[in-house]
Amino acid sequence: MKILVQKFGGSSVADLECMKKVRAKVLNEVAQGYKVVVVLSARAGQTNKLVEMAYQWSDEPNPAEYDALLATGEQESVALFSMLLSDAGVKARSFLGFQVPILTDNAYNTARIVSIEAGQFLQELKRFDVIVMAGFQGYSMENRITTLGRGGSDTSAVAIAAALGSELGQDVDCHIYTDVDGVYTTDPRMVPPAKKIDKISYDEMLEMASMGAKVLQIRSVEFAKKYKVPVWVRSTFTNDKGTLVTQEDESMMESVMVSGVAFDKDQVRITILGVPDQPGISASLFVPLSDHDILVDMIVQKASRDGITDMTYTVSHKDLKRALTYTEKVCKEIGAQGVEYDDQVAKVSVIGVGMRNHSGVAAMAFSALHKANINILMISTSEIKISCLIHADQLEKAVQTLHTTFGLDGE
Amino acid sequence: MKILVQKFGGSSVADLECMKKVRAKVLNEVAQGYKVVVVLSARAGQTNKLVEMAYQWSDEPNPAEYDALLATGEQESVALFSMLLSDAGVKARSFLGFQVPILTDNAYNTARIVSIEAGQFLQELKRFDVIVMAGFQGYSMENRITTLGRGGSDTSAVAIAAALGSELGQDVDCHIYTDVDGVYTTDPRMVPPAKKIDKISYDEMLEMASMGAKVLQIRSVEFAKKYKVPVWVRSTFTNDKGTLVTQEDESMMESVMVSGVAFDKDQVRITILGVPDQPGISASLFVPLSDHDILVDMIVQKASRDGITDMTYTVSHKDLKRALTYTEKVCKEIGAQGVEYDDQVAKVSVIGVGMRNHSGVAAMAFSALHKANINILMISTSEIKISCLIHADQLEKAVQTLHTTFGLDGE
Repeated sequence: MKILVQKFGGSSVADLECMKKVRAKVLNEVAQGYKVVVVLSARAGQTNKLVEMAYQWSDEPNPAEYDALLATGEQESVALFSMLLSDAGVKARSFLGFQVPILTDNAYNTARIVSIEAGQFLQELKRFDVIVMAGFQGYSMENRITTLGRGGSDTSAVAIAAALGSELGQDVDCHIYTDVDGVYTTDPRMVPPAKKIDKISYDEMLEMASMGAKVLQIRSVEFAKKYKVPVWVRSTFTNDKGTLVTQEDESMMESVMVSGVAFDKDQVRITILGVPDQPGISASLFVPLSDHDILVDMIVQKASRDGITDMTYTVSHKDLKRALTYTEKVCKEIGAQGVEYDDQVAKVSVIGVGMRNHSGVAAMAFSALHKANINILMISTSEIKISCLIHADQLEKAVQTLHTTFGLDGE
Repeated sequence: MKILVQKFGGSSVADLECMKKVRAKVLNEVAQGYKVVVVLSARAGQTNKLVEMAYQWSDEPNPAEYDALLATGEQESVALFSMLLSDAGVKARSFLGFQVPILTDNAYNTARIVSIEAGQFLQELKRFDVIVMAGFQGYSMENRITTLGRGGSDTSAVAIAAALGSELGQDVDCHIYTDVDGVYTTDPRMVPPAKKIDKISYDEMLEMASMGAKVLQIRSVEFAKKYKVPVWVRSTFTNDKGTLVTQEDESMMESVMVSGVAFDKDQVRITILGVPDQPGISASLFVPLSDHDILVDMIVQKASRDGITDMTYTVSHKDLKRALTYTEKVCKEIGAQGVEYDDQVAKVSVIGVGMRNHSGVAAMAFSALHKANINILMISTSEIKISCLIHADQLEKAVQTLHTTFGLDGE
C-alpha cells in the first residue's frame, strides 16, 4: 500500500474556494495510486475566535474544557473537507484525535503525544481512499480531549506518518504545505539572492527552526528525526517539489560547509558585573530563572580576574522584566556589583552539518564579520552551528556578509 | 447518591448571560446535595449556522460528516458551560456523546440510541459534582459521531437518566427546562382559561406531543415510558415545579375523564371516489405512500354500496403534492372514479387515560360539537383519544367548546 501524508494549514482551508484547491492536490495523489492521509488545521481565524470566546467566558478557562472547545475548529474543517471529497466520488472519512487515537499526556493546551495506535486507522485506510485527520488534537490518559499547542498540526502529521510507517515497516512521506515553496538558505526578504534548499538534515532544520525560520514547528522536526520520517516542505500555491528534510548523509556533509544563515531579533543581553567567582554561582543565578520558565539562550562567563568575573546571558524581550527582577535579587544575595542590560542586540548563526568535516568555518565567519566592521558581542557554538550576538543595527549586513562568504548566494 | 438530570435547550444557553442564569439553577441543586447531570443543546442559532455551512459546502452533505460537523455545536456549549462551573468552584467536567458512550445505530442524522454504558459515567459522577453532557449526539457502531435528529437533546437527557437509574437501581428524575412552565390542558394562546397540568401520564403526553404540543419530543417521551423515567417539564424563567410526566396510576384515571384538548392544523384530506371494494385495495393505495415516506394520519373507508366505496385519508401539507401524484396513479390502476382534496381542514382531539374508566366521552364530544354547529368530517379513536377532523375555520370554536365541555377551564 502506497501511503502519503499531506498536511494543510489554516489559510489553505480558510473557505470553500481554498478547500477546492486543496482537494485538487489530494485528488492528484489519489490518481497516482496513493492512499492519502490529509491532516488539517482549523480554518484560518477559527482558533483565534474560539480562544477569544473562551476568555469571554472565563478569565482563566479550565484547561481541559478549553481544549474541548478548541478541538471543534479542526472537527469543523475535517468534516467539511470530507464532504467535498465525497462529492468528488472519493471514498473518504474524517478521523478526530480521539478516534485514531492519538494518545497524549494530560498536559492540556500543550499536550505531548505518547503513542499512536495506528492499527484501526490502517484498516480504515484499506476501506477508504482518503482519511482526513484533525491536526492539533489528541486524547489524554484520562479520556479527555487535548490539544498539542499552537502549530501542533505539523506534529500531528509527522506523528501519523511515523506511526503508519512503523506499522507497515516502510517509510511514509509527509508533505507539509505552507505559503512558501521550501526552506531557504536565509530569509529572502532580507537577502534577495537567498536560494531554496533541496535537501536539509533534521539537525540543520532544528537549528534553522529554533532561529525563527517558521516553516516548520520545532516539535514536528524532533518527531521526524526520532522516527526518521521524510518530511517535504512544499507550497500550497505551486507544484514545486519543495525541500526534503531527512536524515543526514555523507553527500550532504561533503558538498557544502554551511547550509544556511539564520537570525533572531528577539534577544536581550543581561550582564551581572563583578560576580565573585565561586563554585555554584551559575546555579544560583540560572536555577531561579529556569524555575520561573524563563528561557535562557546564550551564556558567557568572562575569564575570572582576581576572583571576580562578569556573567552575560540572553533572553527574549518578553522575559526581560522578569529576568531582571530575579537577577537583581540574586545579584544582592551573592554580593555582585550590579546588573546591566542591552536590548539592541541580535543573533546571527551559520548552520551546516558540513562543519563536522570542514574545519575553519568559525574562523571564516569571524573574519568575514570583522572585515565588515561588525563587532561580535557573544559567541556560542554547537557541532553544526556557530552563533554570534551582534548589535541589532548591523544584523542585515551580517546576514548578507555570511550568506555571501559561504557561497550561498544564488543567481 | 442523589442524582438529578437537568436539560436546557439552545435558547437557555444562547450567550454568557443566559448560561449564568442556568448555572444558578444548577448550583441550587448542587447545594441540595444532588450530583447533577446537565444536558445541553447547542447555543441558539448554532445548529442552523452549521447546517447552512454544510449546504454551502455540498448539495448533499455526506451524512456521517454532517453529524461530525453538527456535533461541534454541543461540544462548544458544554465546554463553555463547564468553564463557568469551574470558575464557580464546582468540580465539573464535560462529556461528549462518544465519551459516555451513547451508542447508536448507524442512521446518521436521525440515529437511535441502542445502549448507554453508564458505568464509567457513574464513576466520574463520584469524582465530579456536575457532569455537563452534550445532548443530541451519539456514537455509532462503526465508531463515528452520530446525531439524534432535531430535538434529540430531550431524548439524550431522558436516556442518561434511564441508564443511571438502571445502574443504581433507583429512579433518577429528569427535568426538561423549556420556555413554558409546564404542559397545558390546551394551547393558552387559543384558549386563555387553559390550565397547567400537574401530572400527566406518558401515554397522554405522547398523544399531546403527536398533536403538536411541542414541549417535549415524542421520542423522549417514548424513551421515558419504556424506562419509567419521571420527567418534569419546567420553565427556565420561573421556579414553578412544572408538570410531572409519569406512569399512569389509578388516581389519574378516576379523577378526570379528559386531561387535555389538542389540535393539529397541518392536515389535508384526500379522497378517492368510487373505489371498487375488493380485497387488497387499501394496500394498493397505502403501500406506495409508505414506501415514499408519506405519513398518513387518519383513514376512513365509507360503507360500501353496490361494491363501490370512497376512501379518505389525511396527510400533512408538505406531503400533499407527492401524495396526490401517487394516489392518482393508483386511482387509474384500480379503476376508481377520481381524486379530490381539501386543505382547509384541521384536527381536534380530546385526550385522557380517564376514558378507560368513563364511558360516553365520545358521545359527549360529538354532541358538544354538534350543538356548536361544527360539522365532523372524519373520526378516529384510540383507547385514550378521540380525534375529529373539522373545517379549519371552526377549529378555535371546537377547541374552546371541548375544553369547556370536559371541565378543563380554569378560573
